[in-house]
Amino acid sequence: MEFAGLLVTASGIVDRAQPLLRADDLGVLRGDGVFERLLIVDGEPDLFDEHLQRLERSAVMTGLRLPPPESWRKAIAIACDEVRGLENMSLRMIVTRGVDESGDEPSWYVLVDQVSPAVLAKRTEGIAAVTLDRGLDPELTERAPWLLMGAKTLSYAVNMAAQRWAREHDADDAIFVAPDGQVLEAPTSAVVIARGRTLLSPPPSVGILPSITLGRLFRAASGAGWETRLEPFVLDDLHTADGVWLVSSIRLASRVHTLDGKALTCVAPHDEIAALSGPFRA
Amino acid sequence: MEFAGLLVTASGIVDRAQPLLRADDLGVLRGDGVFERLLIVDGEPDLFDEHLQRLERSAVMTGLRLPPPESWRKAIAIACDEVRGLENMSLRMIVTRGVDESGDEPSWYVLVDQVSPAVLAKRTEGIAAVTLDRGLDPELTERAPWLLMGAKTLSYAVNMAAQRWAREHDADDAIFVAPDGQVLEAPTSAVVIARGRTLLSPPPSVGILPSITLGRLFRAASGAGWETRLEPFVLDDLHTADGVWLVSSIRLASRVHTLDGKALTCVAPHDEIAALSGPFRA
Repeated sequence: MEFAGLLVTASGIVDRAQPLLRADDLGVLRGDGVFERLLIVDGEPDLFDEHLQRLERSAVMTGLRLPPPESWRKAIAIACDEVRGLENMSLRMIVTRGVDESGDEPSWYVLVDQVSPAVLAKRTEGIAAVTLDRGLDPELTERAPWLLMGAKTLSYAVNMAAQRWAREHDADDAIFVAPDGQVLEAPTSAVVIARGRTLLSPPPSVGILPSITLGRLFRAASGAGWETRLEPFVLDDLHTADGVWLVSSIRLASRVHTLDGKALTCVAPHDEIAALSGPFRA
Repeated sequence: MEFAGLLVTASGIVDRAQPLLRADDLGVLRGDGVFERLLIVDGEPDLFDEHLQRLERSAVMTGLRLPPPESWRKAIAIACDEVRGLENMSLRMIVTRGVDESGDEPSWYVLVDQVSPAVLAKRTEGIAAVTLDRGLDPELTERAPWLLMGAKTLSYAVNMAAQRWAREHDADDAIFVAPDGQVLEAPTSAVVIARGRTLLSPPPSVGILPSITLGRLFRAASGAGWETRLEPFVLDDLHTADGVWLVSSIRLASRVHTLDGKALTCVAPHDEIAALSGPFRA
């Protein structure tokens, strides 16, 4: 099945192959916008309320105005209806400042794409990661709001450059660490480790995006007898952990099997973690 | 005179009010692109070769493919012809990765806008600036190429957030400093100070954009008997300098008259520095 992708705006479904944005939209001129990406599960947006809430948080951090929730709900309902029955669909909510600096007329739309086979494969095959210095001290999160640490903006050039660097160095993805060695996040996912029956992930206060999939994993894991903690840890802890995963809305939980060229042993139950991260309840 | 702005693509002049970019252009989804902005002076792009060279450097840093120089020259010639006789025109060269991850089909175009009266006014009135921590250690420039320090990408959300923060705190613009107190650059310009007959600006090796206008200022100043040096300096040096300026292709040289709420005395000849920065030779 080949799915060409879908575009929904306030006007409903429009031809995605046609231009939508002006050349001087501040979303493109300055990466001035925010976004969310999530799965469509059983015809519904997965964890929509959480994603909308995080989008609103990013908008506050960047001084952007969003369309009202009803506009998103309507566009997303149209999108979900259109792809009903198709497997592995993901949905992006995009908002840019538009052409007017004031932000009074934001551009916004919904894109639907099929999750790539490569990403799906990683859920079972796992990934090789390299650690890369993110350069920003976690204590700047509160003190330097202009650095937008923890906002999900369209200014993703560094995230993309980190992933390109990883691919050019025999890896699939990157894990950012702070100058002091604290583990932060991956360019498009959160990092989780297991130590016995405890799951750990760095707290958002270190300047990272609060992960919605991590939230679901931790809730489900708590119910299944795991202890879960948002707690700082360092690079060495990745090597000594019982398991390391990257989790995100699209990849769910992918196990890190190799870090900086060294194999990581995973004695933790990967299948259980994967199931607890996902939207699928048997 | 009201100028509505101009858009030139490979097809020539097109209606700027019409959409040009697809909703899934990676320039908007990820701020994945590079740009330059320059003045049009006497019907010609000011310092075009230098801007093209810097665009190429940014493209290498971000793994982007550019259209050939002839394509730029042709589009820019059309743009300059169209606005011949109009004053204070600026031109932007924009390239995005396009919709194809490979970058084989980049989106690119030229925008012409009038320099805003506010920016023009700052050339004579000067500006109030606040210093903001940029968070990145200069030594990361070489060691962490994935941070894209010194690349001019479309991922400008932090630059814009810094300027918004400045405006919300009774200032016109920001000056970034490194965690160790070294002065770096402003979100859209370089920083220059005078000490006697010496002009100093931080070297690009601290992780900042090589400034084309600074290059012109230094060449012209050398010819006029100034000593010029690319050399690190710290926050305190701004307060004790004989003059502090922000220089960029559009603002040319704007004097910083207030820093972090304190008045800066300028005993250096501002008019001379402004003239040496500019394209206008009497």
